[in-house]
Amino acid sequence: MNNFDLYNPTRIIFGQGRIAELNRLVPEKARVLVLFGGGSARKTGTLDEVKLALGSREIHEFGGIEANPSYDTLMKAVELVRREKLDFLLAVGGGSVIDGTKFVAAAVGYAGDPWQILLDHGASVTQALPFGTVLTLPATGSEMNNGGVVTRPELQAKLAFRSAFVFPQFSVLDPSKTFTLPVSQVANGVVDAFVHTIEQYLTYPVGAMVQDRYAESLLQILIELGPKVLADPQDYGLRANLMWAATQALNGLIGAGVPQDWATHMVGHELTALHGLDHAQTLAVVLPSMLKVRRESKRAKLLQYAARVWHITDGSDDARIDAAIDRTRAFFESLGVKTRLSDYAVERGAIDKIIAQLSEHGMTALGEHRDVTLAVSREVLELSI
Amino acid sequence: MNNFDLYNPTRIIFGQGRIAELNRLVPEKARVLVLFGGGSARKTGTLDEVKLALGSREIHEFGGIEANPSYDTLMKAVELVRREKLDFLLAVGGGSVIDGTKFVAAAVGYAGDPWQILLDHGASVTQALPFGTVLTLPATGSEMNNGGVVTRPELQAKLAFRSAFVFPQFSVLDPSKTFTLPVSQVANGVVDAFVHTIEQYLTYPVGAMVQDRYAESLLQILIELGPKVLADPQDYGLRANLMWAATQALNGLIGAGVPQDWATHMVGHELTALHGLDHAQTLAVVLPSMLKVRRESKRAKLLQYAARVWHITDGSDDARIDAAIDRTRAFFESLGVKTRLSDYAVERGAIDKIIAQLSEHGMTALGEHRDVTLAVSREVLELSI
Repeated sequence: MNNFDLYNPTRIIFGQGRIAELNRLVPEKARVLVLFGGGSARKTGTLDEVKLALGSREIHEFGGIEANPSYDTLMKAVELVRREKLDFLLAVGGGSVIDGTKFVAAAVGYAGDPWQILLDHGASVTQALPFGTVLTLPATGSEMNNGGVVTRPELQAKLAFRSAFVFPQFSVLDPSKTFTLPVSQVANGVVDAFVHTIEQYLTYPVGAMVQDRYAESLLQILIELGPKVLADPQDYGLRANLMWAATQALNGLIGAGVPQDWATHMVGHELTALHGLDHAQTLAVVLPSMLKVRRESKRAKLLQYAARVWHITDGSDDARIDAAIDRTRAFFESLGVKTRLSDYAVERGAIDKIIAQLSEHGMTALGEHRDVTLAVSREVLELSI
Repeated sequence: MNNFDLYNPTRIIFGQGRIAELNRLVPEKARVLVLFGGGSARKTGTLDEVKLALGSREIHEFGGIEANPSYDTLMKAVELVRREKLDFLLAVGGGSVIDGTKFVAAAVGYAGDPWQILLDHGASVTQALPFGTVLTLPATGSEMNNGGVVTRPELQAKLAFRSAFVFPQFSVLDPSKTFTLPVSQVANGVVDAFVHTIEQYLTYPVGAMVQDRYAESLLQILIELGPKVLADPQDYGLRANLMWAATQALNGLIGAGVPQDWATHMVGHELTALHGLDHAQTLAVVLPSMLKVRRESKRAKLLQYAARVWHITDGSDDARIDAAIDRTRAFFESLGVKTRLSDYAVERGAIDKIIAQLSEHGMTALGEHRDVTLAVSREVLELSI
């Protein structure tokens, strides 16, 4: 096991009917900005429920945060917070709204140009406004970690940042708030949580027994849950398990003390920025090819993955690895998430530009061995057509 | 899954050579009381290493905290802190030293008689001194939770308390500091972590997939590690996994959103208070009988335990349950921890007094269904002879 630090002060408030507790979770005198996305929080009544819970506090609203939240949109929220002298943020939504809220929290009091926060991936952040979240879409784990991703479409850039100052103070996780999600978003969430787990697990062995078994737990749960939760969207128990598994997949725990990969995510980010694929779609496309191309350096863990997650025990080492990768792809497809670039009308001719953007963003030595060069990324993309 | 709150702000600093980082972890101007146990921290050099890391800070020492830390001993530390106006506590040791330090932290500024903290199980605690820990014995999880147990021998009382104010600020977990532990303490630690997990897992199903699989992960790891770590005490990887598994077994995570039992612990506490058994010895004695006596109310989870932890798939339901309980007992015995009261010279005639003490301490309706009456506890004890 590698040495590690682990710290996560986010308070989780999990279960049906917990939104009313915002009244004790948000400071009594807070001047609150409620941030949300495209309007589903309003349509479903969750926004009203949140405002009711906040009682007589001064509340401002900021809607319209996009999937892959954009810098320009978020800067409008920053201006609103500064203008109205608000002092507490409350994100109501999924990973995009929460990521965006983290950026706003860090940017409001930031001394220089807030774009720098993304250029240095959060290193220059020294403070942030306090904020909480009400999660409505299980997927990214943003509700219990200190990272976020922001997109700047005019630069075709999708950049991640991380800071000890942007842990949510609390996150309310009410699984019943996910009943009304579109099927495609639920499917994306399952894929996202699955690949988050894989990025921290499927590298090389360091003898981290707890982290490995926890990761294998989450993968097996997602495989079992995925089809069921799509088939029976009103089942509270299924939704609750999906929500908690997705949070666990990226709250720091399974990644502590082990190598981490994240090459699939980094290549995927460029696909979203250039071609508008959903985040999870990019992961479903890139991961199977990434595993195929890097099978030698991941061999030991691929065999462990085949055995413990997919219970594949027959055949040669290579046959078991192939079977595990094929099962992974088939799992994504079974959820309705396509796994080929051509499914999204991205053709071979697009690859040069994707590679150029990876180069532009410094993504020239990715993965747990820093050996995913641009040439390797190109091979992965070519295999993903 | 049941509703739950989860909050754990303890910072974990894990790995070999991390004690030097106390210099950044402890406030620069802190006036520190270093608390430790029977002297092994001094003998092994860990105490010197800690003091070196603390540099020029004012340091006072308080040694001699016993296994099952006693109220009278801890009150001497409270007096020292008050007299010398110390403002930071640093526990160097295992669960007893850390539990004791939590009590001292809460007692120093407590308005009334600190015994009340134990009588009301922490409910009246409204503040505590800040403290950190350097863990030298993996077992109790106290390094990453907010609970403690204190013994008052003259009252034959061993009482638990819990408070949001007594989370360690940080815990340094250096597995190499456990190389010199006596075999019996390591074996006790494995049993302790195992039974902590069981208390939060082996109750009745509530469909908590993550919590169940995490618990099963820890149990399988402890079963695999136990014999190896005893056979090869200098293996860093084994020690690291044992240490992290023991922390995970009682840091709140696997117990969030599920029913919890703890009847084995409560009966065990009386055995320690009256007959001086090590904490883990009491668990090894009580648990197998507790599972036998309560097999009907635990039936579904016992079958899951048999299948997923012990991989027992043959035979009738009852045969598989019996086999799982037998394997549990055999596992403890294989570690050298005896599982019968008679192994510790506690005879049938002692049971009346144990039951009287349970009654005295209000332990009349234990377990996840509150149905472990004094009569059930008596049956368990009689089966444990």
